[in-house]
Amino acid sequence: MNTSDLAQKILDRDRRALSRAITLVESSRADHRVQATALLDELRGQSGSAIRIGLSGTPGVGKSTFIESFGMMLTGQGLRVAVLAVDPSSSRSGGSILGDKTRMDRLSRDKNAFIRPSPSRSHLGGVARRTREAIELCEAAGFDVILIETVGVGQSETVVAEMSDLFILLMAPAGGDELQGVKRGIMEMADIILVNKADGDLKNAAIRTCADYAGALRLLRKRTQDPDGFPKAMPVSALEENGLQTAWDEMTELSEWRKDNGHFTSRRAAQQRYWFEEEVRQSLLAQLDHGDAKTSLKRLGDQVAAGDLSVSKAAATMLKALKT
Amino acid sequence: MNTSDLAQKILDRDRRALSRAITLVESSRADHRVQATALLDELRGQSGSAIRIGLSGTPGVGKSTFIESFGMMLTGQGLRVAVLAVDPSSSRSGGSILGDKTRMDRLSRDKNAFIRPSPSRSHLGGVARRTREAIELCEAAGFDVILIETVGVGQSETVVAEMSDLFILLMAPAGGDELQGVKRGIMEMADIILVNKADGDLKNAAIRTCADYAGALRLLRKRTQDPDGFPKAMPVSALEENGLQTAWDEMTELSEWRKDNGHFTSRRAAQQRYWFEEEVRQSLLAQLDHGDAKTSLKRLGDQVAAGDLSVSKAAATMLKALKT
Repeated sequence: MNTSDLAQKILDRDRRALSRAITLVESSRADHRVQATALLDELRGQSGSAIRIGLSGTPGVGKSTFIESFGMMLTGQGLRVAVLAVDPSSSRSGGSILGDKTRMDRLSRDKNAFIRPSPSRSHLGGVARRTREAIELCEAAGFDVILIETVGVGQSETVVAEMSDLFILLMAPAGGDELQGVKRGIMEMADIILVNKADGDLKNAAIRTCADYAGALRLLRKRTQDPDGFPKAMPVSALEENGLQTAWDEMTELSEWRKDNGHFTSRRAAQQRYWFEEEVRQSLLAQLDHGDAKTSLKRLGDQVAAGDLSVSKAAATMLKALKT
Repeated sequence: MNTSDLAQKILDRDRRALSRAITLVESSRADHRVQATALLDELRGQSGSAIRIGLSGTPGVGKSTFIESFGMMLTGQGLRVAVLAVDPSSSRSGGSILGDKTRMDRLSRDKNAFIRPSPSRSHLGGVARRTREAIELCEAAGFDVILIETVGVGQSETVVAEMSDLFILLMAPAGGDELQGVKRGIMEMADIILVNKADGDLKNAAIRTCADYAGALRLLRKRTQDPDGFPKAMPVSALEENGLQTAWDEMTELSEWRKDNGHFTSRRAAQQRYWFEEEVRQSLLAQLDHGDAKTSLKRLGDQVAAGDLSVSKAAATMLKALKT
C-alpha cells in the first residue's frame, strides 16, 4: 500500500491501517523511515481537536485500573480514546504495563478505544519519536483523547510532559514522610495530582495525602499558564470508579482555559519546535553508531585509553573524518 | 610564548605559566583552542603519579573549611595540592565557592597549594572540558593531589566522578529522615562519605549519621573495584581538624588497593575514552549554535511551530544542509 492510500484509510478511521502505520513509524529501517516521513507529512494538519493527556505513576499506584476505568467512562460519553505508552524499560522488565492487554480487559475490547503497548528494545529517544508520531496518527484517525502513560523511569516523565497538553501524576496514599520521595522536578510538571485508592481502608489516608500534595504544589509553582486553583490535587478511586468525572471536568476546564488564553496553541508550537531540534540532535549523534564512524570512534578511543593520543587531538581527528 | 616554552615552564613548576595555561584551555577562541590542543599533546604522558580526588557537598556542609584544613594537612606533609572547581552555576550564584579565595585564606597563601576558581559564564560541558584539561596541566606541574570540588548542582557530580580516581561525598549531620534526601545515584558514586561537623553539639549527631550512611552504603553497592570495608562513612571535623589524617589514610589505602589490582589504570583509561567520545558528541552538537546552521535551525523551527512543516521533514532538511 502506498502512503497516500494508507493516509486515506487512517482518515477513514480504519484501525488496522492505524496499527500498520504505527508499526511503520516504529521501524528503524531507512526505507520505512522515508515512508513514515511521507505519511506524517501527508497527514499534517489533519490532527483534529484531540487533547493529549500525559499520565505518570510508579508501579503499584493502580495505573492500569485507572486507565481502564477512566477510559471506559470517556468512551461511555461517546469519546474515542487512544492509549500509548512511553516505557523505555519495557524490554528489561519483560513487557510494558500495557503489553499485557488483559490488565485492561474491558477497554481493550471497546471499539472506541485503541491501546498500543510501548515498543520494546528501544532507547528513550527512539520511544519518544515513535510515541510523538503515533499521537499524530491517532489524532488523524479521529481519536478525541490521547492518553500517554509512563511508569516514570528516569527521564521518561519529561519526555511525556513534552508531548502532552496536560500532565497528570497518579499517586498512592502515603504517610507524610513519603511525600518527599516525589522528585521536585516531577511535581513541578504536574497539572493535576490524582491520589488513587481513595476507597476502603485507604480512603482517609488518600484524602490526607491529597492535602499534603496540595500544600506542596502551592509552594512549588507559580505559573502564568494556570487559572486560579491549578495545579491541584484530588482523590480518586479507579476501583470504585469514584472521582473520575470530577477529574475529567478539571482536565477539560484547564485545557479550555488554556485554549481561551492562547497557551494551548503556544505550548504545542513550542513542543513541536523542541522535538524538531531534538530529532536533529539525535540524528547528528546517531552517525557515530554506524559504519566507518563507529570503527574510527573505537580505534581512536583505544589510542586515547592507551595514552597514545590526547583527548583533544583524537576528537579533532574524529570530527575531521566525519566532515569528509 | 610558544606552546613548547609554556610546556617547559609548566614542567619546571612555574605557577604563573600554569595559571596562564589554564586560562588558555578555558578560552573558547578558535586559535586558543589550537594552542591548547598542542600544549596538552606536548605534555601528554608527563602527568606523574598524582591522585585525583573528587569532592562533592551541598552549600553549608563546610566544604571550604574542609578543603582548607585537609589541604593544609597535606601540604604540611610535603605534598603539593591543587584545588579545581566544577561549578556550572557560578555565573548565576555570583561566583563559585572558590571565587572568594579569602574563604581559604591559609591554603591560598601556601606555596605548595594552587587554587583555581571555576570559570564563569560556562555551561557544564565547557566547565567539564576545562577542568579535565586543567587537571592534566596541574599534574604536569608536579602536583601530588588534585582536589576537584563541586557544589553538586544537577549533573555536576557525575562530571566530577568521571574525572576522579576517588569520589568523596562531604555531608552534614542529619536526622534519620533526611538521609533519603541524598540521591541514590550520588550515593552509589561515593567511595567515602565524610560526615563533617563532628564537633561540639553536633558530634553525636555526626556519629549517628555516619552509621546511617554506612548502612545505606552496604545496601546500595556491591562493587568489584573495592577492597573489604569500602565504600565507608566516617566522621570528621574540619573546624577542629579531627579525623582528617584517618580520612587521608583511607583514601590512600583505597587508591593503593586499586593500583595493585589494576583498577586504577583501567578506570583512568575508561575515563579518557569517555571524555574523548563526549568531546566528539559536544562538538557535533555545537555546530548547531553558530552561523548558517543556527539560522536554519531557527527558520525551520519557526515553520514547524507554525504547523507549516512536519518535524521529520524539517529534521531531514536540516541534516541535509549540515552535510553540504
